[in-house]
Amino acid sequence: MTKASFMEYALEEAKLAFERGEVPVGAILVYQNEIIARGGNRTLEHKDPSAHAEMLVIREAAKTLNSERLNNCDLYVTLEPCPMCAAIISFARIRRLYFATSDIKSGAVENGVRLFSDASCHHKPEVYSGIMESDCSSLLKEFFKVRRKLK
Amino acid sequence: MTKASFMEYALEEAKLAFERGEVPVGAILVYQNEIIARGGNRTLEHKDPSAHAEMLVIREAAKTLNSERLNNCDLYVTLEPCPMCAAIISFARIRRLYFATSDIKSGAVENGVRLFSDASCHHKPEVYSGIMESDCSSLLKEFFKVRRKLK
Repeated sequence: MTKASFMEYALEEAKLAFERGEVPVGAILVYQNEIIARGGNRTLEHKDPSAHAEMLVIREAAKTLNSERLNNCDLYVTLEPCPMCAAIISFARIRRLYFATSDIKSGAVENGVRLFSDASCHHKPEVYSGIMESDCSSLLKEFFKVRRKLK
Repeated sequence: MTKASFMEYALEEAKLAFERGEVPVGAILVYQNEIIARGGNRTLEHKDPSAHAEMLVIREAAKTLNSERLNNCDLYVTLEPCPMCAAIISFARIRRLYFATSDIKSGAVENGVRLFSDASCHHKPEVYSGIMESDCSSLLKEFFKVRRKLK
């Protein structure tokens, strides 16, 4: 599969999160060109502030591979990871991170604390951004537009 | 109970983590002067790179209180939180963070990215460090001494 195809699956997960009333972010974990974990935000449903899409797929993949290190795995996510998710990506030794759209307010890769560029970060994945940016960004904008109307 | 008493419970959890062969860090979550969650590192046991002491007690407390926001809760932890745990502390709206010993290499509160001082951090807990520093630090030093010998 191509990188855009993998990001399409992540976007599908983001859309499912939207339908559940969660901030629409989706993620896919790929190992040896196969999707081994997929999911979207579930912070409200799980009553768990850590239940971001990236965190959920990393936990699931670690269980599947029976290791807390995901050395040759790549992560696709529709939004730039926050500091919590950037840190878990580093701890899990994710090889490549692909994300669709930047998060100027809360991101921690190209924005905010730029975690992977800090000396305290002991594993830095390769980072590729901008894949399917427009679709993933539109979905987030739509979500926040609807939410503002409901308030 | 006093702050030192709460940190003693956190240290007890750190010692249990040591016995399990995990990096000896322990944490306690306090709400209305009662301990509502306690635990230590379980990254190896759970095969979960996110299973740090702070993360585990925050998840447990959120389930107990049935809310992903822990507005009037205080966290006691034996080591300065890493970026992942500092971020979840912020997301969960923890009121006060007490930690025993600094982590120059991987901490993210007084060291590293100093997450709570960054503009991208939307909730900053009150932070108090140094409670029972010597005991908590000795345990960590002992663990890494033993581990080096085994290698």
